[in-house]
Amino acid sequence: MATATDTTVDKAVLTEFLTRVGDNALILGHRVSEWCGHGPALEEDIALANVALDLIGQTQLWLGLAAEIEGKGRSADDLAFLRDGFDFRNLLLVERPNGDIGQTLMRQFLFDAWHLQMLNALKGSTDRRIAEIAEKASKEVAYHLERSRDLVIRLGDGTDESHHRMQAALDGLWAYTGEMFVGDAGDAALAAAGVAPHPESLKAGWDEIVAEALAEATLKKPADGYMHKGGKRGVHSEHLGFILTEMQFLQRAYPGATW
Amino acid sequence: MATATDTTVDKAVLTEFLTRVGDNALILGHRVSEWCGHGPALEEDIALANVALDLIGQTQLWLGLAAEIEGKGRSADDLAFLRDGFDFRNLLLVERPNGDIGQTLMRQFLFDAWHLQMLNALKGSTDRRIAEIAEKASKEVAYHLERSRDLVIRLGDGTDESHHRMQAALDGLWAYTGEMFVGDAGDAALAAAGVAPHPESLKAGWDEIVAEALAEATLKKPADGYMHKGGKRGVHSEHLGFILTEMQFLQRAYPGATW
Repeated sequence: MATATDTTVDKAVLTEFLTRVGDNALILGHRVSEWCGHGPALEEDIALANVALDLIGQTQLWLGLAAEIEGKGRSADDLAFLRDGFDFRNLLLVERPNGDIGQTLMRQFLFDAWHLQMLNALKGSTDRRIAEIAEKASKEVAYHLERSRDLVIRLGDGTDESHHRMQAALDGLWAYTGEMFVGDAGDAALAAAGVAPHPESLKAGWDEIVAEALAEATLKKPADGYMHKGGKRGVHSEHLGFILTEMQFLQRAYPGATW
Repeated sequence: MATATDTTVDKAVLTEFLTRVGDNALILGHRVSEWCGHGPALEEDIALANVALDLIGQTQLWLGLAAEIEGKGRSADDLAFLRDGFDFRNLLLVERPNGDIGQTLMRQFLFDAWHLQMLNALKGSTDRRIAEIAEKASKEVAYHLERSRDLVIRLGDGTDESHHRMQAALDGLWAYTGEMFVGDAGDAALAAAGVAPHPESLKAGWDEIVAEALAEATLKKPADGYMHKGGKRGVHSEHLGFILTEMQFLQRAYPGATW
């Protein structure tokens, strides 16, 4: 990586990148939290709630840093609760509906496999603050991946019913995985400065993790066809609006409310 | 009815009553509008959207009058979009989820049969403003009832599948009908002043309409067991919160926004 210091990258580019990372954690964290109290088994309910909590915790760090670098006096909470949909930068994948538990776990696995690659690369960031957050988050996400991978395999290679549901989940989500590996000019600048990896560079590692797990799960990897994209630049599916209305209700109805 | 004039009833009692009538129209109107673009047939989709529009139109009149009598400088829009759940006074029945089209139509029929009784009584209100709104609204609601009654009969006395769905809808909604006929001190004061009927007085007419339609629909009228209540005094089911977050998003996120 380059030997750039914290200040060689355009502030707006860095803020955008941190918002993307933070919004992925926020929106997936919110989605997963929807399972709280509705899990198919107590153990699974608690595990999902813990994953959600980890992700929301990471959100505070990423969006906190984004807000700090942005320098407009906003906080992580302001970014989470007072932006409208077109200012969110999460991948479309993480706003997909929960569906059944199979769909939730498949979405989690496909994301975790990418998330861990990303965080492992960010541990070597030339930006010390990013490297520190990645160091902490990668430990949690390594566990997320271990768990989602294990469940995808057990359910894929399970009963006929669970196998079909996992295959359907995989087929339905596949077209939302391409966006993870698409870079733009900002990504290129960050990669040149050694701040963050080229999104494209994470593809090989992700392919390997996914291919191995799917093989073990006796699931058929879909062909790479049309891939949805837009989330990274604020063009979202209808689902995000519903997530935000619910997530932001309190701060919208009672601006500035605190505990 | 008594010969009371517009001013003999306590302002707060009158505002509360108008809020109840208006909130029923608003929340049911919103619920029905959720079908827009999702109806099982184009004809039905348009009919549902028209019913929703009628109800939202009535909301403007009722809540407009409520706001005027309240005298705190609020508008019908303020009441609709800036109150939180505990300030809503609609019946729990109208916030029940749409379910399948059978559940939506059964909810509509059970409400319409009550709504028309209520409006017909309000046409004779000693409060001229209330009588005028009731005059207009009752024409629309007579049509709503004709339509929902007809469909309940056709689907109840239809295929095995439609019959079972309508019976399930009826069984599921029945416990939410009792609240329509429960009066409180405010209702008694309004009835004494000839402003509005005793809620209890609407029961016989409703029973007759419902019993005849259900018989023709070959549906079994459930026994009157435990009846849910609370909506009329602001104690709502979890569903209302989700309705409000969606319905109020725009005015919460962009306070004062106009077209």
